[in-house]
Amino acid sequence: MTRKRAILLSQGDEVITGQTLDSNAAWLAEQLTSLGFDVVLQLTLGDRVDDIAWGLELGSGRGDVLICTGGLGPTQDDLTVEVVAKVTQDELSLNQATLDHIQALYKSIGRVMPPANIKQAMLPSRATILRNDWGTAPGVQVEHNACQAYFVPGVPREMKALWKHRILPDLQARFDLPPERLLVFRCMGVHESKLAELMAPFQDRHGVVLGFRTMLPENQVKLRLSAELPQETEEALREEALQILGKNCYGVNSGNLVQVIGDLLRERKETLATAESCTGGNISAQITSAPGSSSYFLQGVCAYANAAKTQQAGVPAELIQAHGAVSEPVAIAMAEGIRERAGSSYGLSTTGIAGPGGGTQDKPVGTVHIACATPTGTHHIKLALRGSRERIVSLAAGATLDMLRRHLQGLL
Amino acid sequence: MTRKRAILLSQGDEVITGQTLDSNAAWLAEQLTSLGFDVVLQLTLGDRVDDIAWGLELGSGRGDVLICTGGLGPTQDDLTVEVVAKVTQDELSLNQATLDHIQALYKSIGRVMPPANIKQAMLPSRATILRNDWGTAPGVQVEHNACQAYFVPGVPREMKALWKHRILPDLQARFDLPPERLLVFRCMGVHESKLAELMAPFQDRHGVVLGFRTMLPENQVKLRLSAELPQETEEALREEALQILGKNCYGVNSGNLVQVIGDLLRERKETLATAESCTGGNISAQITSAPGSSSYFLQGVCAYANAAKTQQAGVPAELIQAHGAVSEPVAIAMAEGIRERAGSSYGLSTTGIAGPGGGTQDKPVGTVHIACATPTGTHHIKLALRGSRERIVSLAAGATLDMLRRHLQGLL
Repeated sequence: MTRKRAILLSQGDEVITGQTLDSNAAWLAEQLTSLGFDVVLQLTLGDRVDDIAWGLELGSGRGDVLICTGGLGPTQDDLTVEVVAKVTQDELSLNQATLDHIQALYKSIGRVMPPANIKQAMLPSRATILRNDWGTAPGVQVEHNACQAYFVPGVPREMKALWKHRILPDLQARFDLPPERLLVFRCMGVHESKLAELMAPFQDRHGVVLGFRTMLPENQVKLRLSAELPQETEEALREEALQILGKNCYGVNSGNLVQVIGDLLRERKETLATAESCTGGNISAQITSAPGSSSYFLQGVCAYANAAKTQQAGVPAELIQAHGAVSEPVAIAMAEGIRERAGSSYGLSTTGIAGPGGGTQDKPVGTVHIACATPTGTHHIKLALRGSRERIVSLAAGATLDMLRRHLQGLL
Repeated sequence: MTRKRAILLSQGDEVITGQTLDSNAAWLAEQLTSLGFDVVLQLTLGDRVDDIAWGLELGSGRGDVLICTGGLGPTQDDLTVEVVAKVTQDELSLNQATLDHIQALYKSIGRVMPPANIKQAMLPSRATILRNDWGTAPGVQVEHNACQAYFVPGVPREMKALWKHRILPDLQARFDLPPERLLVFRCMGVHESKLAELMAPFQDRHGVVLGFRTMLPENQVKLRLSAELPQETEEALREEALQILGKNCYGVNSGNLVQVIGDLLRERKETLATAESCTGGNISAQITSAPGSSSYFLQGVCAYANAAKTQQAGVPAELIQAHGAVSEPVAIAMAEGIRERAGSSYGLSTTGIAGPGGGTQDKPVGTVHIACATPTGTHHIKLALRGSRERIVSLAAGATLDMLRRHLQGLL
């Protein structure tokens, strides 16, 4: 079976001038790819009738499916339906159902529809209307150049809802799509290039398609499997990949690292506290990003000044004087101190030099000591990180959380 | 003078399949727009020779300048130079200076260059080589279809350096570019739609171009001015806009909110401490993202559990019992408590319900009390926020920091 070709068209002056980062195209590309489409072209154009008409001719000529986002609002520079009518030699006429819907929406928030919104109900007369239950502007669908073209608003929430409830069912009805299965191996503590190297023999041996994605400090390996593959084969591939990835893989198709840690803590009815210096609260901010984290996260301190390390985490001032704030003994004392003060099962700590200033010959920028105090002893690692302040903080926070994950999974 | 047309081409399977969000194109589009170019087309293509060659012909035929990112790495699927040679009827030959540079780079980190990297020194013989002092792959420049085409690596750090040191000077030498001046008004506590409404009369009155950008929780108004505009006129426009924006504007072409706060604290030789509940460390993480923040940020606590609010910020347990943890008295006690314990000039606090669970009729999800303790008294605000957990945390953290900014600027 030949794979179907998909084209994406993003429209809007705010996108073409770089004022807005276009996340719609990447999101749609990922959806289409996982459905088995080849996304062969993404186009971005400004709010100009001629340009959009050109893009629509070009795109529809190169694909089986085209999805266009943006340009469906009520203002002068929203030109999509005008272009669709022009290109398909149709005309705009009032769509009463759409007008009723928009008026009802305004009524539901106690307002009268502004006259400008009538424009959103003027639609190409022969197009299929994709009702938008999540906003005012409906989507529009036409066939052009033997290509199914869908036009949806650029507001991500509305675009995603129209994809799910209008476009996806239509694509599934029209095309024989073998839904691919996707295994995402989520890894910490290993570089993308190292992952690629580790997985290369696996890829060759099984002739499978692997994708790699970096979301600092995490790296992911994505394994796409065809729908026809027997369940046992999937299981075998999954196990083999896990063998290769080893302790670095914290989950397959799982939640993120703090969710995995949260689930483990909840299961074990255990609790956590943090004492951060150079990570400045990043670890506690990540932990508390998980809904329900209040059931296992007791407290965090951001002990930036030396006095705060003593006052909040009980680090003896003499210890700081003897070894310096950025040292193994201080990291360990912080982790054990916060664990004791909070009465938690675990205590995490970080102390280091995030830069750009503050480095010395002995302790250059990027030197970070991290520790994890547990009921059975305290783990410590010294990191030597590189890069910007932001990068060093992100890597140090990730490594600290991952140290706890490895302990909880019995890997340390 | 007619404006010059610019085209962007992003290349790579990871981008076209949506695995990687392409921030390069938006960044370059903003640079080119501010230089006075019309960015008329952005193209994204996968790693296929025919597709890239097609895109290069198409793009160069529609623009005066084309910038292509990606496809310059050492692996099989890095095809850019091959395509450039093909399209310009050139051939690849070894560029000794580039090879020397790559070998020296490897030597500097104590490694021998892998044979695969020789590929990065095989370059179109007639192209101009853009030396890359920030990585291995050089950029390449050719003229094709009367269009200046630049090819640079997709690694953002290298791309930005090559833009600044190679492409920008070349564009300035080739084209008569009237450098536009850009005033960015950075605002907190006001919605984008409200900003647009406030600024509409200003825009009409002066016939200027305004841009709006939301970077939650901040909103920006961008005013582009032509190079020919007299300095006095710019000053007058700036003052008038500031009058309209009022207290919501925290800076013009300034650093971000925590940098502005940091500068104010440093100037005044004052210090800060934080006690966060629902924001979970986000405020301290933001404050400490500013280099040098250790000179004014003493400590933060993330007092998630009630016991932690008492232990770390001295909030009387009876107060929590009487009013609940999410209440005005507790927010005030947290701010004043952490200020006293840390011995800092200011104390910031948050306590609220970030959701999705935990809301009640009286205190629905999104109820957040924030406070700012100062030498002259304590400010308090009750927020009623909407949206996801992430959004509520972000808005609450922003509002708390902005409360301190307004106090420091004498606006409260």
